[in-house]
Amino acid sequence: MPQVYERVALIGLGLIASSMFWAMKRGGLAGEVTGFARSAETRETAREIGLCDRVCDTLGDAVADADLVVLCVPVGVMGAVAAEIEPFLKTGATVTDVGSVKADVIAQVGPHIPEGVHFIPGHPLAGTEHSGPRSGFAELFENRWTLLVPVAGTEPAATAKLRSLWESMGALVDEMDAEHHDLVLAVTSHAPHLIAYTMVGVADDLQRVTDEEVIQYSATGFRDFTRIAASDPTMWRDVFLSNKDATLEILGRFTEELFALQRAIRQGDGDHLHAYFTRTRAIRRGIIEAGQDIDAPDFGRGGERNK
Amino acid sequence: MPQVYERVALIGLGLIASSMFWAMKRGGLAGEVTGFARSAETRETAREIGLCDRVCDTLGDAVADADLVVLCVPVGVMGAVAAEIEPFLKTGATVTDVGSVKADVIAQVGPHIPEGVHFIPGHPLAGTEHSGPRSGFAELFENRWTLLVPVAGTEPAATAKLRSLWESMGALVDEMDAEHHDLVLAVTSHAPHLIAYTMVGVADDLQRVTDEEVIQYSATGFRDFTRIAASDPTMWRDVFLSNKDATLEILGRFTEELFALQRAIRQGDGDHLHAYFTRTRAIRRGIIEAGQDIDAPDFGRGGERNK
Ligand SMILES: NC(=O)c1ccc[n+]([C@@H]2O[C@H](COP(=O)([O-])OP(=O)(O)OC[C@H]3O[C@@H](n4cnc5c(N)ncnc54)[C@H](OP(=O)(O)O)[C@@H]3O)[C@@H](O)[C@H]2O)c1
Ligand SMILES: NC(=O)c1ccc[n+]([C@@H]2O[C@H](COP(=O)([O-])OP(=O)(O)OC[C@H]3O[C@@H](n4cnc5c(N)ncnc54)[C@H](OP(=O)(O)O)[C@@H]3O)[C@@H](O)[C@H]2O)c1
Repeated sequence: MPQVYERVALIGLGLIASSMFWAMKRGGLAGEVTGFARSAETRETAREIGLCDRVCDTLGDAVADADLVVLCVPVGVMGAVAAEIEPFLKTGATVTDVGSVKADVIAQVGPHIPEGVHFIPGHPLAGTEHSGPRSGFAELFENRWTLLVPVAGTEPAATAKLRSLWESMGALVDEMDAEHHDLVLAVTSHAPHLIAYTMVGVADDLQRVTDEEVIQYSATGFRDFTRIAASDPTMWRDVFLSNKDATLEILGRFTEELFALQRAIRQGDGDHLHAYFTRTRAIRRGIIEAGQDIDAPDFGRGGERNK
Repeated sequence: MPQVYERVALIGLGLIASSMFWAMKRGGLAGEVTGFARSAETRETAREIGLCDRVCDTLGDAVADADLVVLCVPVGVMGAVAAEIEPFLKTGATVTDVGSVKADVIAQVGPHIPEGVHFIPGHPLAGTEHSGPRSGFAELFENRWTLLVPVAGTEPAATAKLRSLWESMGALVDEMDAEHHDLVLAVTSHAPHLIAYTMVGVADDLQRVTDEEVIQYSATGFRDFTRIAASDPTMWRDVFLSNKDATLEILGRFTEELFALQRAIRQGDGDHLHAYFTRTRAIRRGIIEAGQDIDAPDFGRGGERNK
């Protein structure tokens, strides 16, 4: 695959940045990739495992001369990081981010983008419950959607180039506006994560059922929630605080619906329950047909555990 | 492995019964296995795929002479099925079930167990989102817990024999009383299922986000909920109606906790959120250490999809 950018700077060296690095390496998509992380420990790890062509000890070194700067830090610190790199950005460069929330990131980062620099917010809809510099892999974005959220007046050529980078990393790319992005993600990701965290917290708290029981008997639905609820606390704190309105709106709809189902259980309204449980199967079929999940029972765990 | 029962009758030929059959076959654990399902269609399928040594067209035929009768039907019909088989049960036989709820099943089935027949309720904590006669596989119970719930006065030798069958199918076996079982399962299985069904229903309903968007962008947490919410509607309707009190109790605790987290989001209390999200990670580690889930990121889907 042809090189897309001459120099790329990855700011933050966790799951997403490291996956991007391995995907860019595999495809020869960037001339040189520099990297920066906050802690000396992470930078040391990155050097050890060959993550980035050059790991820099300052933001300025990482960003200077970069044609593409990718902000891969928690959404709560995007603004502060943008303020720090502002003086070093090259005219004609593109700044993008991978944050899970878009309107708030645009509000925080936008003011720090100098004249003559393109700002094209983005979000790869791909992740795992693991984090840190060792957690990335080149295949993370394959057949997964990346959403670009160009702000008004962005040069189409700059957007096309960034789109081409994501496509070359295996992603499907779509564009939408920030408000819609944040609502869609509140439904497909943010509310589900909060609900999973809550359910695991309740189980952990319960006096009459021990944690040992919860752990032993988790293969009945609960363990799927624990995977989601094992995701990085800092990342998710920031997501909920940055996408407050949409998340609270969806959670409001969720509790309304949950109350209706609780009432049906209390009143013994089996028809209501059966109809509800039948309707939700169609979405699963759609997801499998769209290639966004595998159809192997229990996520194919059966095979895994019998190796 | 040595034969455990001479003759076993499987009543209902879905996921659990078919998995038991293949596991018993593999281990040579039963002399002859008979089977019965309600519909001619399922019985025909069973004959076609060799599910059971003999598929019977009446409950009486299937049960006559059986040393072990396993009720593998939805919990809502356990009582009716028990009433029908009552006249055919052999003295000295054991009746067990695999229902996901125990107190209610015991109340429904108990009265139909004749003098001289053992009744030892059970529940294998293993399943998938698939159902029907073609969905079973011999490995389903391996390294998963099966809970036995012997009623007062049960002969220890009869319980030991049933335990040995489950262990020979690869299961870990524990005993507890029915009320505790129903509370443990409300936490680890029943509440999580209702919550997943609710979340998928909300996403499906939402006017401003299309089903197509929900499907395309589901790889961000949501798709895990859709797997759970694709489970059989009849089975789950029955579970909620039969385990009403414990399920409603756990859902009450859940909504209480969810409200507290919603308030933390609204008030911008990041410390509360961060502390909560940190606490829930320990349970995940416990589950992986206990061998009840795999540690591969994203349930190992990465590997699956890159084949
Ligand atoms: N994980 C997912 O599933 C996922 C999916 C899509 C998008 N995202 C988004 O991608 C972004 C990164 O997530 P991730 O999962 O890759 O995170 P991660 O694995 O936790 O890594 C975060 C990185 O950011 C660095 N960092 C934190 N604060 C910083 C600061 N003030 N200045 C400089 N670097 C800082 C960390 O450095 P240290 O290591 O030195 O602490 C670490 O290298 C987040 O905005 C998240 O919302 C995540
Ligand atoms: N699925 C799980 O994850 C799981 C896990 C543990 C325990 N369980 C429990 O196991 C039991 C069976 O579940 P499953 O998943 O194996 O169900 P399934 O795949 O849906 O199969 C249910 C079977 O029961 C038969 N049946 C239904 N009503 C009947 C009646 N009145 N008389 C005779 N047969 C009848 C059905 O016959 P037709 O095919 O002719 O309709 C079918 O063969 C349930 O009590 C469930 O709570 C399930």
